[in-house]
Amino acid sequence: MCQKGKYNLCENMIWLWGAYAEYIKVPAQTVLVNMQEIPRNVSYEEAAITEPLACVLHGSEKTELGLGDTVAIMGAGPIGLLHLMMARKKGAGKTICIDLVEERLDFAKRLGADETINAQKEDVEQSLHALTGGYGADVVIEAVGLRETWEQALKLVSKGGRVLEFGGCPPGTEIKVDTELLHYDEVEVCGAFHATPLHFRKAINLIASRTIDVKTLVTREMRLDQILEAFQALSTARNEIKIAIIP
Amino acid sequence: MCQKGKYNLCENMIWLWGAYAEYIKVPAQTVLVNMQEIPRNVSYEEAAITEPLACVLHGSEKTELGLGDTVAIMGAGPIGLLHLMMARKKGAGKTICIDLVEERLDFAKRLGADETINAQKEDVEQSLHALTGGYGADVVIEAVGLRETWEQALKLVSKGGRVLEFGGCPPGTEIKVDTELLHYDEVEVCGAFHATPLHFRKAINLIASRTIDVKTLVTREMRLDQILEAFQALSTARNEIKIAIIP
Amino acid sequence: MCQKGKYNLCENMIWLWGAYAEYIKVPAQTVLVNMQEIPRNVSYEEAAITEPLACVLHGSEKTELGLGDTVAIMGAGPIGLLHLMMARKKGAGKTICIDLVEERLDFAKRLGADETINAQKEDVEQSLHALTGGYGADVVIEAVGLRETWEQALKLVSKGGRVLEFGGCPPGTEIKVDTELLHYDEVEVCGAFHATPLHFRKAINLIASRTIDVKTLVTREMRLDQILEAFQALSTARNEIKIAIIP
Amino acid sequence: MCQKGKYNLCENMIWLWGAYAEYIKVPAQTVLVNMQEIPRNVSYEEAAITEPLACVLHGSEKTELGLGDTVAIMGAGPIGLLHLMMARKKGAGKTICIDLVEERLDFAKRLGADETINAQKEDVEQSLHALTGGYGADVVIEAVGLRETWEQALKLVSKGGRVLEFGGCPPGTEIKVDTELLHYDEVEVCGAFHATPLHFRKAINLIASRTIDVKTLVTREMRLDQILEAFQALSTARNEIKIAIIP
Repeated sequence: MCQKGKYNLCENMIWLWGAYAEYIKVPAQTVLVNMQEIPRNVSYEEAAITEPLACVLHGSEKTELGLGDTVAIMGAGPIGLLHLMMARKKGAGKTICIDLVEERLDFAKRLGADETINAQKEDVEQSLHALTGGYGADVVIEAVGLRETWEQALKLVSKGGRVLEFGGCPPGTEIKVDTELLHYDEVEVCGAFHATPLHFRKAINLIASRTIDVKTLVTREMRLDQILEAFQALSTARNEIKIAIIP
Repeated sequence: MCQKGKYNLCENMIWLWGAYAEYIKVPAQTVLVNMQEIPRNVSYEEAAITEPLACVLHGSEKTELGLGDTVAIMGAGPIGLLHLMMARKKGAGKTICIDLVEERLDFAKRLGADETINAQKEDVEQSLHALTGGYGADVVIEAVGLRETWEQALKLVSKGGRVLEFGGCPPGTEIKVDTELLHYDEVEVCGAFHATPLHFRKAINLIASRTIDVKTLVTREMRLDQILEAFQALSTARNEIKIAIIP
Repeated sequence: MCQKGKYNLCENMIWLWGAYAEYIKVPAQTVLVNMQEIPRNVSYEEAAITEPLACVLHGSEKTELGLGDTVAIMGAGPIGLLHLMMARKKGAGKTICIDLVEERLDFAKRLGADETINAQKEDVEQSLHALTGGYGADVVIEAVGLRETWEQALKLVSKGGRVLEFGGCPPGTEIKVDTELLHYDEVEVCGAFHATPLHFRKAINLIASRTIDVKTLVTREMRLDQILEAFQALSTARNEIKIAIIP
Repeated sequence: MCQKGKYNLCENMIWLWGAYAEYIKVPAQTVLVNMQEIPRNVSYEEAAITEPLACVLHGSEKTELGLGDTVAIMGAGPIGLLHLMMARKKGAGKTICIDLVEERLDFAKRLGADETINAQKEDVEQSLHALTGGYGADVVIEAVGLRETWEQALKLVSKGGRVLEFGGCPPGTEIKVDTELLHYDEVEVCGAFHATPLHFRKAINLIASRTIDVKTLVTREMRLDQILEAFQALSTARNEIKIAIIP
C-alpha cells in the first residue's frame, strides 16, 4: 500500500527484464498487481504500445494541458508522437513538433501537428517564438533526453507555462536553470517517470476505444529472430517509428 | 483583460514606487483595479502586511500543500514565517524551519514550527533527512534568495515532492539541477512572483478573520523619520521581524 | 473586485437587454470590463456565438470531463451541440446525443457524435445503459431545461459520475433526487450560470483558432427585419440550429 | 484493478461484518489489500477511529474546502465532530456547528467551533445567515442522515458553494431540490461513501502524527460484554461521543 498512491516511485520496485523471448517468467506479485487483460478488439501490435502510452499519459497529466493551449513537443520519435496524439486529443489549440529528421516531421504532420520546426535547418527558439506571437508555448514537452534539449525547453516556454522534461538523460547529467525564469516568469518544471497500474489500465482503454489510435505508429512488422536487425533499422532508418516484433 | 487570468505576470505592469512618504499619488487605474478597502477591524499595522501575505498565499497555492504534509521552510525572516503560518493553517503534518540565526528559529518555534535546523551548527541535509525518516520533505519552500539555498532546496525534497523557490535571487543567477531528480524522483520545481488582485483580497480577508494573525510578526513600531534606523535594525538586529512605520 | 473570482455570480450584475437593434447603448463599466475585441480572422457570424460558447466552456469546466470519458448530452439544440463539440475536443472517449428530433440527431452525428438516442422512439435509460456496458455515462449534460430531463439525467450517470444540469428550468421548478444516488453512488450534481469575462476571452480565442468551429452551427442568414420570422423558424423548423441576423 | 481508482465504489465489494468479537476471520484478499499496520505510537482506542476518519477525510476532499472558507456542519456527533476537526485543520476561516443537543455543541466549542446553533432553540437558516453576513456558508456538511437536514443543507449554502451530504438516509429517501439553486447559484451537491485503502492509510498517518487528535472523542471505555449497554449509552446519554470497547 503506497502511502501517497505514487506506485511509479516505489522504493521497492520489482523490475522484469528480458521481454524479447517467446516466454517469460513473471513474478506472482507482478501478475496480481500489474497484469492487464487485453480487450478482445485490441491486437498484440497495439497492446504492445500500452507501456509507452501509459508513461505518456502519466506525463501528460503533469503538463496540466488545457483546451486551446499551444504545445511544443521536442522530438518526433515514438514518444514525441504519442505526446502529439495525446495533446491533440486533449484539445491543444496549436501543436508544434521539433526534430532533426524531416521524415519524422512529415510523420508528425500526418498525425495532425499544426507546425513543425526542423532543428537542423532553423533556429528553434526564433521559429518557435515566431509561431507563438512571441510568447512561447504554454506547454513544452521534451522527448529527446539530452542536456541541450532539456535546457532549450526552458527557452521555448511562455510566462506561467509548464515544461515537462520527459526524456531520460544519461546518468549524472545536470542542467543550468535561470532563476529569473522560475521566479519572474513562473515557469514550472517537472519530469515524469514510468506510470502506475492505473495509468496502464487507462492506456489500454484509450487504445481499445481508439481514442488514441496507436496502430498508426507501427511502420513495420518483423520476426523475433530479426530483433537485432529491427534495432538497427530503428536507429538508422528515417522512416521507421515502431517495429512490431511478431514471434 | 488578461487572457490567462495571470495578472501577476502582466506584460504591461504598472509599478508604483516610493511608499515611504506621508502621501503618495496613485494612478487612476491602480485605484480602480487594485485598491482594497481595509476592513474596520484591521489596523494599519496589520493591513501593511497584506502585500507580503498575498504573495505568500499565491506561492503557497503553487506548493499544492496538503493535509499532513511535511514542509521544510528555508529562511525564518518575515516571508519564511508567513509561509510557516500558512503551512500550519493548511494542515501541514510537520513543519521544519531552517535559518542561520537562533533567535529567528526561536521565533519560528513560538509560531508553532515543529522542528528547527540551525544551518550554522548543523548539516542541513543530514538533519532534515533525520527528521523525515530519510524521505525528505513533501514540500520545500525557499525563502532566502541565494543560489546556494535554491540548489540546497532540491536536496531536501522527497520523491514526488514539490519545491517552491520563493526568494528572488540576484539578476543572472543560475542554478544547477540534476536531471535524475526531475526524472526518476519526479520532483516539481516552481517559483512565484507577486500576486493577483484576488490574492490581495483573500489576504486581507485572512487578516481580518484572524485566520493568519499577522500582528505577531510586528516586533516594533517606529516613526517615519526613523526609517533609515529601521532598515538598519532589520539588517542587524537578530530579534526584529517586521517594524511598523507609524507616520 | 469579486472576493471569490466568481464574476458570473455577482450580486450586483448589470444586465443589458435589447440587442436586436442596429445600435445599442452600452454602459461605461460594461465597456471597460466586458468588451472584447473581435480578432481579425473572426466574422460577425462567428463572434455572435462567443456568448453561448463562453457559457458552455464554463459549464464544461464543471464537468471535469477527462480523456476517454463517456459523455451523454441531452438536447441537440445549439447549446447541446456546442457541448458536443467541446466534449469531443477535450478527448471524450464516447459521445452520446439524445433528442426528440431526428434531424438534430443527424446534425449531431455530422459533428462527430458517436451515438444518438431518439427519445421519441427509444427508452432513453435502456438505450443509454446498453451503449455504456450497463454503467451509465461518466458525465451527463442536460441541455434542455425541463424538470423531466433534469431528473432523467440522474438516471443516466455512472457511479462516481458527474451531472451538469445546464438548461434553465421555469422558475419554481423542483426536482426529486434519490439520496442513495448521491450517497452510495457518489454522483455529483451541479449547474452552471452564465460565464466570467475570462471565459468570454477564452471562448473568442477558441473561435479564432478554430479549436471550436462554431460556423458549422449557422444554418441560415436573415436580415434584422426578419427577426420574428427567424424566431418562428427556430421554434418550428427541424433543420435550423443557429440563424445569423445580418442587419 | 479499478479502472477509475475509485475502490470505494467497487461493484464487487466484500463486506466483513461481526467486529464485536474477540477474534474475527478476515478473508485473505482483505488482509492483502486492506490491512494496515498500526504505528507503534497509536493506541487501539485511537486506531479504532481510523475507519470513520478515513470516511471523513474522503468526504472532506469532496468539499474542496479552502483556506478561510466558512463551513457549516450539521450534526455534532462523532462524524460531525471529526468533520469539524478536519475543517479546522485545513484552515477554515469560520466553523459553525449545528445540533439539537446543547452538550454536543459544548463539545464542539471545546474542539474549536467558532459558532454553534442549537436547532431546538433557534431558526437555523436565520441564525446561519446572520453568522455569515447573509451569504450562507461556503461549505455545508450534513452529518445527520435525514431528509429534512439534507434539504436544509441546501438552504444554508452560499452562491457558488458546495454541499456535502454525508449522513446516510433511510433507503428510498428522496429530497426536493430547487433547480434555481443549482442553476443561478451554482451550488454543487455531492455525497460520499466509504473510503479507499489510501484514505485509510492517510487517516492512520493523521492519527499517528496527531494532526487529528482523535483521542479527544473517546469519552468512555467499556468492556466487550458491556456492548449493549454501550450502544444504549450512545443513543441516550447527551455527553458520550465515542465509547472505546476494550475486550
